[in-house]
Amino acid sequence: MITLTTDFGLRGPYVGEMKAAMLRLNPEAVIVDVSHSITRHSILEGSFVMEQVVKYSPEGTVHVGVIDPGVGTERKAIIIEGEQFLVVPDNGLATLPLKHIKARKAWEIDFEKVKRFTKWGISSTFHGRDVFGPVGALLDAWVEPDKLGSEIPLESLIRLDIEPRKEDDLWLLKVIYVDDFGNVILNLEDYGRPGEVELVDLGLKIPYLDTYGQVEPGKLLALPGSHDYLEIAVNQGSAAEMLGLKVGDEVRVRLI
Amino acid sequence: MITLTTDFGLRGPYVGEMKAAMLRLNPEAVIVDVSHSITRHSILEGSFVMEQVVKYSPEGTVHVGVIDPGVGTERKAIIIEGEQFLVVPDNGLATLPLKHIKARKAWEIDFEKVKRFTKWGISSTFHGRDVFGPVGALLDAWVEPDKLGSEIPLESLIRLDIEPRKEDDLWLLKVIYVDDFGNVILNLEDYGRPGEVELVDLGLKIPYLDTYGQVEPGKLLALPGSHDYLEIAVNQGSAAEMLGLKVGDEVRVRLI
Amino acid sequence: MITLTTDFGLRGPYVGEMKAAMLRLNPEAVIVDVSHSITRHSILEGSFVMEQVVKYSPEGTVHVGVIDPGVGTERKAIIIEGEQFLVVPDNGLATLPLKHIKARKAWEIDFEKVKRFTKWGISSTFHGRDVFGPVGALLDAWVEPDKLGSEIPLESLIRLDIEPRKEDDLWLLKVIYVDDFGNVILNLEDYGRPGEVELVDLGLKIPYLDTYGQVEPGKLLALPGSHDYLEIAVNQGSAAEMLGLKVGDEVRVRLI
Repeated sequence: MITLTTDFGLRGPYVGEMKAAMLRLNPEAVIVDVSHSITRHSILEGSFVMEQVVKYSPEGTVHVGVIDPGVGTERKAIIIEGEQFLVVPDNGLATLPLKHIKARKAWEIDFEKVKRFTKWGISSTFHGRDVFGPVGALLDAWVEPDKLGSEIPLESLIRLDIEPRKEDDLWLLKVIYVDDFGNVILNLEDYGRPGEVELVDLGLKIPYLDTYGQVEPGKLLALPGSHDYLEIAVNQGSAAEMLGLKVGDEVRVRLI
Repeated sequence: MITLTTDFGLRGPYVGEMKAAMLRLNPEAVIVDVSHSITRHSILEGSFVMEQVVKYSPEGTVHVGVIDPGVGTERKAIIIEGEQFLVVPDNGLATLPLKHIKARKAWEIDFEKVKRFTKWGISSTFHGRDVFGPVGALLDAWVEPDKLGSEIPLESLIRLDIEPRKEDDLWLLKVIYVDDFGNVILNLEDYGRPGEVELVDLGLKIPYLDTYGQVEPGKLLALPGSHDYLEIAVNQGSAAEMLGLKVGDEVRVRLI
Repeated sequence: MITLTTDFGLRGPYVGEMKAAMLRLNPEAVIVDVSHSITRHSILEGSFVMEQVVKYSPEGTVHVGVIDPGVGTERKAIIIEGEQFLVVPDNGLATLPLKHIKARKAWEIDFEKVKRFTKWGISSTFHGRDVFGPVGALLDAWVEPDKLGSEIPLESLIRLDIEPRKEDDLWLLKVIYVDDFGNVILNLEDYGRPGEVELVDLGLKIPYLDTYGQVEPGKLLALPGSHDYLEIAVNQGSAAEMLGLKVGDEVRVRLI
């Protein structure tokens, strides 16, 4: 099984070309579209989406992610192998999925090696079709990573700076995702079970509950959400709009 | 074959998580995305969309539908078995598909039984990934419904009130769907073949024809459409916009 | 493998119905969604998108395309056989894919023959579900085209007029595609490697380079793109917006 997460959009030929190229190399591949509507060039959003899918995928799954503002520049294209595989540009996209795959090794993809399989050229602007998709399809068909690249140290990979910070009892957090419903997801896991959450900058204390329906429509709450991260929501409304928050914003929080 | 109809949207991780979880339980599943862009919480729209797909699906197909404003509350999660399977929240979503599957039995899904298969917890907010998707995947792999829930009477299921009503020669109808092109679909089937359709509240009589191109661009017509329901359309335009109609609105109609 | 390119949109039941109908006829089919978000009725856009996917698809692939403003009128429904198959309305949609499949034969689809397989009626408005999808599914299951239609001469097919024209050193070109990022794709292939491209009507000379990042953000460039056609782009911006161009517009260009 191969999953695809990209910012290509669903209107154009890009997704179709990528999948056609993959099935040409590996006609047995089961390809799962995760999302092709990641906000353009939003590496953090893509990293969060890929993480969630990794958590529920079977061992051996190959996750191809292409949010790639640096296509055509010197950024590396990489393979990471653990209980599952990641095939991504080396721009931080792997940061969150890496927490769940028990990574063992990484490779820098070698375009010349890839071309021996694909037999077509590598464009400067569409590595999804010419590099990442084919490499994912070949790994799924049990081609060895060594046939596709050269090993590099796991420690050399670029990672996003999204560890939560704490000063006394104050958490300095970041918005790592805003979903279609306007729920705001913060980079804090394993925080126990507070009674209330104080949004310090806004001078607001909101209850910590299990599900949206436990407050009146239009009211704020905090909850564990379905992603193990601290989530701020509005029942039947958009917390992102109400609080003016977007991906990457900083939020100071006190758990009470 | 398993079909998916949800209001999750295509941007986030939700669809990908759900499909990954399903393939983890049933790697052979053929999953067909019907739509993940049902209007949020619109049970009627979801019911209509599921009905259309049921009508063209092979026997044994498992249809998973998740339009679920009541997630985390007491609403039941159910399985319905007939010539095809429905796996949905018990909130009326099954109403229209039920007309076509010769339903024999229903079960209330038991979360404890589901967890014996999935081995992960059930969140309060994402039953698509934790309950409905897994149950669909397991049914498709021939797991018996009794292993996933407890039988309940078919008559106990919640149904939407969308039978057309008639007063003398006047039909009191409801808009059950507005498609992307603005075609308005009303809850009337098997109405013979009128010459004209009178939209009583608007004082309009429009011709009943076979296809859009039989009137001038911009003109109204009624037609059988492709869904067996009475449809109001504008050639190369939007009837919903022209008439100010949306899903759930009432429309009084006389067939002439 | 069967690919689908349509303007049905992703919200309604249309795509799901079409795929359900196809899998009912051919349960083994591998169906690849290319795009269901082609601009409504834009035959040229659909033709471009299908062409790109054809170029990367394996031999024997069946490409079903439904951009069909003439549904319900006298326009033919056709099958074209070459190294790959096209199943489309005869309205020019096949024009660009035809360049790559070494076409050998064409058939006009006969609805009566199709109904012998499908056993359901053919609506006047939804030939994707009732004709094109089923024919694609049946071809993929090795049903002979003769069982589905009657041969017609390849020369009789309708083609879009999109050959580039040249007057002295001036190219009279057409915008054949604008992608989600605003990149403008022109109908010129095999034009060598200019140093600059002059957009004559705008009095602009822009550099011809390999990739977006080679100019400052916000600056125009021309490049080969990933589709072998001449492409006009703005680094991190939209060339279509900056230049006010859309699909079908004419552009006069001098290569320097």
